[in-house]
Amino acid sequence: VIAIDRASAKPLYRQLYEGYRNAIVERQLRARQRLPSTRSLAAELQISRIPILNAFEQLRAEGYLEGRIGSGTYVARALPDELLTPASRSTSRKLPERASKRAIARHIEVLLPEKAGPWLKGPGAFHIGQPPLDQFPVQVWSRLVARHSKNSDVSLLHYGQHMGLAPLREAVAEYLRTARAVACEAEQIMIVSGSQQALALAAHVLLDLGSSVWVEEPGYFGARHVLNLAGARLVPVPVDDEGLDVSAGIAQCPRPRAVFVTPSHQFPLGTTMSASRRLQLLDWARHSDSWIIEDDYDSEYRYGNLPVASLQGLDRDSRVIYIGTFTKILFPALRLAYIVLPADLVDAFVEVRRAMDVCSPTFHQVVLTDFIREGHFARHIRKMRLLCRERRNALVSALRKELGGLELLGDQAGMYLAASLPKGIRDREICERAAQEGLRVAPLSECYLGKPRQGLLLGYGGTTVEEIDAGVRRLRDVIRSCVNPQLQKSVSVTTQKTTRRSRRSSGERANAARLPGRQ
Amino acid sequence: VIAIDRASAKPLYRQLYEGYRNAIVERQLRARQRLPSTRSLAAELQISRIPILNAFEQLRAEGYLEGRIGSGTYVARALPDELLTPASRSTSRKLPERASKRAIARHIEVLLPEKAGPWLKGPGAFHIGQPPLDQFPVQVWSRLVARHSKNSDVSLLHYGQHMGLAPLREAVAEYLRTARAVACEAEQIMIVSGSQQALALAAHVLLDLGSSVWVEEPGYFGARHVLNLAGARLVPVPVDDEGLDVSAGIAQCPRPRAVFVTPSHQFPLGTTMSASRRLQLLDWARHSDSWIIEDDYDSEYRYGNLPVASLQGLDRDSRVIYIGTFTKILFPALRLAYIVLPADLVDAFVEVRRAMDVCSPTFHQVVLTDFIREGHFARHIRKMRLLCRERRNALVSALRKELGGLELLGDQAGMYLAASLPKGIRDREICERAAQEGLRVAPLSECYLGKPRQGLLLGYGGTTVEEIDAGVRRLRDVIRSCVNPQLQKSVSVTTQKTTRRSRRSSGERANAARLPGRQ
Repeated sequence: VIAIDRASAKPLYRQLYEGYRNAIVERQLRARQRLPSTRSLAAELQISRIPILNAFEQLRAEGYLEGRIGSGTYVARALPDELLTPASRSTSRKLPERASKRAIARHIEVLLPEKAGPWLKGPGAFHIGQPPLDQFPVQVWSRLVARHSKNSDVSLLHYGQHMGLAPLREAVAEYLRTARAVACEAEQIMIVSGSQQALALAAHVLLDLGSSVWVEEPGYFGARHVLNLAGARLVPVPVDDEGLDVSAGIAQCPRPRAVFVTPSHQFPLGTTMSASRRLQLLDWARHSDSWIIEDDYDSEYRYGNLPVASLQGLDRDSRVIYIGTFTKILFPALRLAYIVLPADLVDAFVEVRRAMDVCSPTFHQVVLTDFIREGHFARHIRKMRLLCRERRNALVSALRKELGGLELLGDQAGMYLAASLPKGIRDREICERAAQEGLRVAPLSECYLGKPRQGLLLGYGGTTVEEIDAGVRRLRDVIRSCVNPQLQKSVSVTTQKTTRRSRRSSGERANAARLPGRQ
Repeated sequence: VIAIDRASAKPLYRQLYEGYRNAIVERQLRARQRLPSTRSLAAELQISRIPILNAFEQLRAEGYLEGRIGSGTYVARALPDELLTPASRSTSRKLPERASKRAIARHIEVLLPEKAGPWLKGPGAFHIGQPPLDQFPVQVWSRLVARHSKNSDVSLLHYGQHMGLAPLREAVAEYLRTARAVACEAEQIMIVSGSQQALALAAHVLLDLGSSVWVEEPGYFGARHVLNLAGARLVPVPVDDEGLDVSAGIAQCPRPRAVFVTPSHQFPLGTTMSASRRLQLLDWARHSDSWIIEDDYDSEYRYGNLPVASLQGLDRDSRVIYIGTFTKILFPALRLAYIVLPADLVDAFVEVRRAMDVCSPTFHQVVLTDFIREGHFARHIRKMRLLCRERRNALVSALRKELGGLELLGDQAGMYLAASLPKGIRDREICERAAQEGLRVAPLSECYLGKPRQGLLLGYGGTTVEEIDAGVRRLRDVIRSCVNPQLQKSVSVTTQKTTRRSRRSSGERANAARLPGRQ
């Protein structure tokens, strides 16, 4: 019945197992049919009984066979008819044709059209989330990696703590107290796998389906994405020269469950939230019993002044959930970030973390702890700040030269800047064409929930000065190809005007003096 | 006004910045108050103007000061009154006393009492999720780590793909096709950070608030936890000798959105789902348009027979979401696992992943790819299987010797077994006391949604033979101390009877012959 190939690399018991399983599935053997005894089968096939016994035992364990060795073995009687039509034996899985789409979560159906644009797919010039990886101290890092990978400390192989590795939490707390004026102890720090996870955890802990959340307009699409996933009701609150317009928020939705805000370096416009707005927001949050999620995603990169102190450090009511990340200063593939939690939220975050992914991998937490403790982190920040300033300057110069009419925003901090496009030009179209040229320019309009402003977000952190010069020229050609000649002319006039006016009214007075255009 | 300490390590501009900021916050300087000119201040303090200019610029950027250099600098007028009462200057954050609890998500409030018991906290003898870490090939692993950490391939530092590293997905697909009879291509594999994350992603994608999900009764608490978090309605479906009782499930809830099942090695009872039940479940899922989540969490550890083929491999309708993990065979701190997705769910999983944590860290995906490709993984599985079998045997012998009355379940596979306790003994109490003795025995009753059976889950994967012998003796003493003498006597009679009866009626006939008690 079953063909045996003694020359095959496949063990005999496996050949027998598969042979009988197929014979049952493909109807060659029927329910209740008796199989030959192992002894007679062994004689027939001229093999030992052992592989036969093993194969039968396996088939019995899986329910294909019934009966006891000795008293006879049968094909199981309880097999439903479905077994008897063979499952596709091909390993490639073609989907059966379906009359209708299969049911999944409704909010996912809503999210699916919001798929990431080509400007987020893969690295490339002007990618907004790309730090200067070419300057990462690989030697130092790999020395620390080697130090710990040879160490056979078994305790580091176990599940980690939900809150993260204790020494790293200590190091982060110390860094945040001194560099960011965050009021915290290590017990409040949770190590997470990137700031996006921090947002997801916060959304899970704080929000019910339909909870209102203030988001900045324009604002960070990654936050909007996860808030939508949580089923929150997003309230777009406009941003002006002083950051989030708290009064406008109050007028729209006086008691939000939470407020999402980027006070150090507003995403995407680059504004720094003023002290009075900060205090107004904290005051209102206390009054309305709202939480504040402060995303301090790139405050290490600040060129004009000292880093701005955190909103969390001004909070006297433990309402701020503070988020910061290592991926923007070290490298994104590291997937390590942190949250500073109000003490009464620690238990809830731990429970959600336990359900979501237990903990972050331990190994790089150990390496990162040494990287901070031994001073490499502080050194790297200083180096990156200088380097990014140089790249920022190169980008600003190239843009002024090649695309003089664009108004530049938020170029005093971070790893990207925004360039506002004049009316009549659609940023998505430019960004899609630019992506075909390998440029990862992102559309500003993507950051709006309501009526969008058209513009471009240009990352310079991960783009060298040479790439910047060449890239801006290519971008200029892309923009030209998108604008018809008629408009082109009017654009160049309009944009010059826009720039003048906006410079005068710019809220970044302290910073404006340094804009290359004013030197 | 501001005290300057030239001997301090703190730079002068920083001292000035902090001094003025504190003076404003603590009301020594009032709104609209004019500050001395930088020139006169420099003369007064006998320092250069530069640190003063820097400090003022910073304070202006943060909104504490207004005005222009030269025309006079003022304390900002727009500061609300709140600024004028000082924030706590202490870095340690005491929570303000509150009249009531602050609003967080309602389902979290429900989950919070379900906090992890002491048996899950930290490693220790009999921990159910602990593989044999003492035998992990640290040398081989660290050689692969060193190989890649010196490599300065910048592309590995960028954001990874949401689906995971392509070569690892290829290696996993190949492994699953041959070792687990999973029908898949690399395009369907998503690399995730542990099987818990796989469950969380599946819950997000598949379930709406209130969606019904069949769960095994008893079943895996980690799955229950994440399903509760997703707001699903859990339908406990009993498990018998053949695994999930599909007919019972149909009777209770005929059209569940999804079914969560552990067919290879039922958690926690250790049953293997029979072929007829598998086909019945697949058939019903097609009929009722339900998804099946197959958690194949430890199928590498199988002692009696070959590994059992996956449910996914029998599915002709792409309804099975198959989950497997590396953490149970390599080490938990690695946080790497995988999902095999039906092709029409790939986009939805990618969108949810993008919102949740973007991707898993890249580095160990690279290392793991080599570990698999170069044969270390297959070798390690074989070694672990032998080792765990030895430990399983030691545990079974020790339990028979010291706690002869307990009925043992599911000892033919995995890294743990269940021991059913006789009536009148509460497993939680034993487990809590055992945890104080450093034993991480888990209560079986935790796995029930309805009326629980009392029992103990004993992990042996991460517990050496010596620890097992000593641990079982300590466990015996703990149990004795929990049971009053009256009961103790009746227990010993009852348990002997229970064991006999259950052995005779055991569904694991093929396996029963190997139980030490029958040798």
